[in-house]
Amino acid sequence: MLVLGSALIFLSLTPRQQAQKPNIIVFLVDDMGWQDTSVPFWTKTTEFNKRYHTPNMERLAKAGMKFTNAYAMPVCTPSRVSLLTGVNAAHHRVTHWTSPDKNKNTDFADSDLHPVDWNINGFSPTAGVPHTFYATALPEVLKENGYYTIHSGKAHFGSKDTPGSDPKNSGFLINIAGSEIGHPASYLGKKNYDNPKNGRSDRNAVSGLEAYHGSDVFLSDAITTEALKALETPIKDKKPFFLYLAHYAVHVPLNADKRFVDKYLKTGLDSTEAKYAALVEGMDNSLGDVMDFLSEKKIAENTVILFMSDNGGLSRSPARGGKAWTHNLPLKAGKGSVYEGGIREPMLVSWPGIIKPGSVTDQYVIIEDFFPTILEIAGIKSPKLTQQPDGKSFVQLLKNPSFSDKNRELVWHHPNRWVPEEGPNIHYSSAFRKGDWKLIYDYKKAKLELYNLKEDISEEKDLALANPQKVKELAVLFTNQLKKWDAQMPVLKTTGKRVPWPDEVASNGLF
Amino acid sequence: MLVLGSALIFLSLTPRQQAQKPNIIVFLVDDMGWQDTSVPFWTKTTEFNKRYHTPNMERLAKAGMKFTNAYAMPVCTPSRVSLLTGVNAAHHRVTHWTSPDKNKNTDFADSDLHPVDWNINGFSPTAGVPHTFYATALPEVLKENGYYTIHSGKAHFGSKDTPGSDPKNSGFLINIAGSEIGHPASYLGKKNYDNPKNGRSDRNAVSGLEAYHGSDVFLSDAITTEALKALETPIKDKKPFFLYLAHYAVHVPLNADKRFVDKYLKTGLDSTEAKYAALVEGMDNSLGDVMDFLSEKKIAENTVILFMSDNGGLSRSPARGGKAWTHNLPLKAGKGSVYEGGIREPMLVSWPGIIKPGSVTDQYVIIEDFFPTILEIAGIKSPKLTQQPDGKSFVQLLKNPSFSDKNRELVWHHPNRWVPEEGPNIHYSSAFRKGDWKLIYDYKKAKLELYNLKEDISEEKDLALANPQKVKELAVLFTNQLKKWDAQMPVLKTTGKRVPWPDEVASNGLF
Repeated sequence: MLVLGSALIFLSLTPRQQAQKPNIIVFLVDDMGWQDTSVPFWTKTTEFNKRYHTPNMERLAKAGMKFTNAYAMPVCTPSRVSLLTGVNAAHHRVTHWTSPDKNKNTDFADSDLHPVDWNINGFSPTAGVPHTFYATALPEVLKENGYYTIHSGKAHFGSKDTPGSDPKNSGFLINIAGSEIGHPASYLGKKNYDNPKNGRSDRNAVSGLEAYHGSDVFLSDAITTEALKALETPIKDKKPFFLYLAHYAVHVPLNADKRFVDKYLKTGLDSTEAKYAALVEGMDNSLGDVMDFLSEKKIAENTVILFMSDNGGLSRSPARGGKAWTHNLPLKAGKGSVYEGGIREPMLVSWPGIIKPGSVTDQYVIIEDFFPTILEIAGIKSPKLTQQPDGKSFVQLLKNPSFSDKNRELVWHHPNRWVPEEGPNIHYSSAFRKGDWKLIYDYKKAKLELYNLKEDISEEKDLALANPQKVKELAVLFTNQLKKWDAQMPVLKTTGKRVPWPDEVASNGLF
Repeated sequence: MLVLGSALIFLSLTPRQQAQKPNIIVFLVDDMGWQDTSVPFWTKTTEFNKRYHTPNMERLAKAGMKFTNAYAMPVCTPSRVSLLTGVNAAHHRVTHWTSPDKNKNTDFADSDLHPVDWNINGFSPTAGVPHTFYATALPEVLKENGYYTIHSGKAHFGSKDTPGSDPKNSGFLINIAGSEIGHPASYLGKKNYDNPKNGRSDRNAVSGLEAYHGSDVFLSDAITTEALKALETPIKDKKPFFLYLAHYAVHVPLNADKRFVDKYLKTGLDSTEAKYAALVEGMDNSLGDVMDFLSEKKIAENTVILFMSDNGGLSRSPARGGKAWTHNLPLKAGKGSVYEGGIREPMLVSWPGIIKPGSVTDQYVIIEDFFPTILEIAGIKSPKLTQQPDGKSFVQLLKNPSFSDKNRELVWHHPNRWVPEEGPNIHYSSAFRKGDWKLIYDYKKAKLELYNLKEDISEEKDLALANPQKVKELAVLFTNQLKKWDAQMPVLKTTGKRVPWPDEVASNGLF
């Protein structure tokens, strides 16, 4: 009866009404930190907000809603798989970044812990591929529901020679420049994005942009231009579209975008940071091009834009200029860490007619929420999925900025070692948030830390010893969730046993 | 009779006496500027001398002779071919850097001038290879005269799939990591110098260092260790050796050498410049390793070391941190330019028992002088050569630091366009030095400049208008030399005619 009813409603729509399904654009940035913008996401305007120039993000913030407590995972692929499937990383088990090469664990060797048996080949749209998370991808559902689906930019969903590596296997009708690679070997058209005309390509060469080889077109610009060209088809056919415009920027290498870099160099800014700022502005310029295009085509009013980054800003030095772990201040640490600097993201959403312009929300949301939210925006109610999504739609929040849910529980699970050097909880750490409270679990030290984010956004005052009851309460909730998902826990090399669950640590008073 | 005489002398030497032929090490650095060292090459100790730490260059300077007026060509391959053959770039016609790819002209398109038909495939040890300079290479002559010849590091003598690309075709018995490439895609062992274990290599991947893949060994260290290992054979066999240790450092990419970079970052130095300084120190560390090895093996007393760079320090920004064309001050400009910053090099030579320790010479010498000098050091008097060398041996200078020749004429010929942007005489420029006078010819402006280097090392005061007689005198000498070598001159797009010779410009008073 229900199916028949839906069909009848569908059949009664004219083509014009069908076209009024909102277009949806996910504008995803790589490695962009919470402060890498002139849009202030904190209560204060920071030096970083003054340094970076992102006029189009400002424009988007004015048109829509600013999320001051939006989260992703501490590294890249886990966030992308969560967005694609609605599933938390502890649950989908792609807990770390995937190598372009198949069957290659990117975990660095650790002296204390064995790596977990995570899904090192990433996401897969087909069953039976070893070490992948098999699920129904968001663009697949959208495509089946009449959306024209376009991928442009960085995919990094799965390793080479697995089905997840090609976005076209996951429901994208069009794929521009997306593959198994996690960063470009070069952003420069003059360098053919590192594809030589004759000779061997770098494994991180960007594919599919041959028309721009030898030109002065910066990669961020090329994927934007091609994405907008691809949009001509659904616009002409009056079909709703889903554009996933995922920038390679602002990931290293920090190639200088000549359109913007001189301005930053002239301020006397550290040269690495000047290149980074130019990379940020080039990305923002793309956002402006997209918004201008929507206006020109007179479809801006019916298009939702969701702006997001996939993890915190890189803060290793000398990859970045200046002192390590200072690039996301007031947030602690950066990419790789479960401290706020590694997971809190600049997030903006515009939806003309639905979101009140210039609204701001402090409600926390997380990357897996994009999946149910986008399905709800698209009016898709009971999609056939092979997975059970963990994310919650934030559509009610878009409609009502004062909506609040302090009982929501968020989990970040990262039982992996990212890089050779040590850093603030950048390895083998997990975290849990409920309300303003955040619990952090360091597996190597078997130590819990407790922070009140409302009072201490910089996570400087560990309240665990002062508030053991709160630690225990959160540790139990955290552990229950991890166990429910059968989350993978690393094994101690000395004992051959898994590290304790957070509630075991809490009950032992080890904090 | 002469041949017979030589044979008799040779036959009368015992193996021990033969071994007393001096060992010769050419320690060549890539893109190192005149001021990129703690050894002061100017009359004053500069801020750069204070910034860089090169204790082993200091050690070498104390042991041997410092050349304050040593020159190379403004870009890389021309210098290397001159060193290998003793021939000036105007004469060998490899006037610009060669592409790793065969038959590819690296000249950037210019609005005013057609590129010349230069030898775009570089040097060739065999005749008949199109667009190469065919000659007898220095290591070939040394090998034929009993030297054990080793190449380690960057070759960049000729393009891929030509005989010049492999140093073993040019008389080197051993080749470590040398090929057609002009810079490494990566200096990092952890990145396998950009050779993936499975997958496509970057065209600028460094070959032949598989043993170091995945390790923490920086490229400068790997080529040094392998070079020293290779030296065990001639030392054991008591054969004289010729080691050409040509560093990829300090060419971009400025990968951070973790052994040294933190020290520079902590001083608050621009992060790009900190990486550059670490690359310099890593190169210097290699020099120290070589000197220590010679002492351990008790062969230091019989080993000549010639330290040189192949062109001026790179001074483009943002490739380098800070303001463009300031990195070689007090010298003007940098790599690519015929101003002093592009051609004056840090040069040191030690020869125990021959060179007075700590000596300094202001006599000007040029890269093609290495060829006859090294042959003279090796006691090779009448080598069979297919080319006519232009260089002059500076052995008499090594023996007598007060030797002076103010009548020597030097020529830099660069009828090429290096990069897209403009810069101080970095394109289509040639220069001539005699005594303290230097004449510069800008082909695009058809303009001559005159400087007195003794009074004006920074080439700030163009004396051409004040001293037209000197301009004319030098222009005639310059033109005669260019014509003698049948030097290639670019053709104007507007008229279809070659640019005027310097003496034509001088007689027209166009300065």
